[in-house]
Amino acid sequence: MEDCIFCQIIAGKIPAAVVYEDDKVFAFEDIKPAAPVHILLIPRRHIATFNDLKPHDVELMGHMALVLKKLAADHGLAEKGYRILINCGSEGGQQVYHLHYHLLGGRPLGRLLP
Amino acid sequence: MEDCIFCQIIAGKIPAAVVYEDDKVFAFEDIKPAAPVHILLIPRRHIATFNDLKPHDVELMGHMALVLKKLAADHGLAEKGYRILINCGSEGGQQVYHLHYHLLGGRPLGRLLP
Repeated sequence: MEDCIFCQIIAGKIPAAVVYEDDKVFAFEDIKPAAPVHILLIPRRHIATFNDLKPHDVELMGHMALVLKKLAADHGLAEKGYRILINCGSEGGQQVYHLHYHLLGGRPLGRLLP
Repeated sequence: MEDCIFCQIIAGKIPAAVVYEDDKVFAFEDIKPAAPVHILLIPRRHIATFNDLKPHDVELMGHMALVLKKLAADHGLAEKGYRILINCGSEGGQQVYHLHYHLLGGRPLGRLLP
């Protein structure tokens, strides 16, 4: 997707602090971190929102969960804890329409919602 | 797990407003909703935290993602949007040590973190 900022990051056209990549997914630091650790994990394939998941994405989504666990451990969050979240659509607060998990940690994260 | 409140809900020993179940997962309304729609999705098998996921859980986690998409649609959240999150450990704000996804929606959910 030419006009997708995350697709451009994957393509190397926009710089990012990459922390993990494999043939299916790509992870980098959020440029406006909301916590000491704030990583975004995205599929390489453009999927706009969580609503756009198809049955054949089951393997991809399972893989992303295991990668999130690894990223949390790699960034020293496993013991103290962390939060993983996905925003979908306007009321969810989604800002970039390329599916992404937020991994947040490094401080007590407080309540579920503001 | 005898002392796990979510295992007791699955076993029918503690009542809950069940909204979905299959052979792998179980979903019910949060008793202290933080939004108009607040559903918890849990694996039937006791997994304490996100840190406890094993490689063989990849299929389960992929399945949970697709069930979350279905639950969002079933509860009228697909168009306006929603948030999905997992808290892990103390700094993440995990309160029950049986892995659970929160599905939240029905109002604008605001910032990523309080």
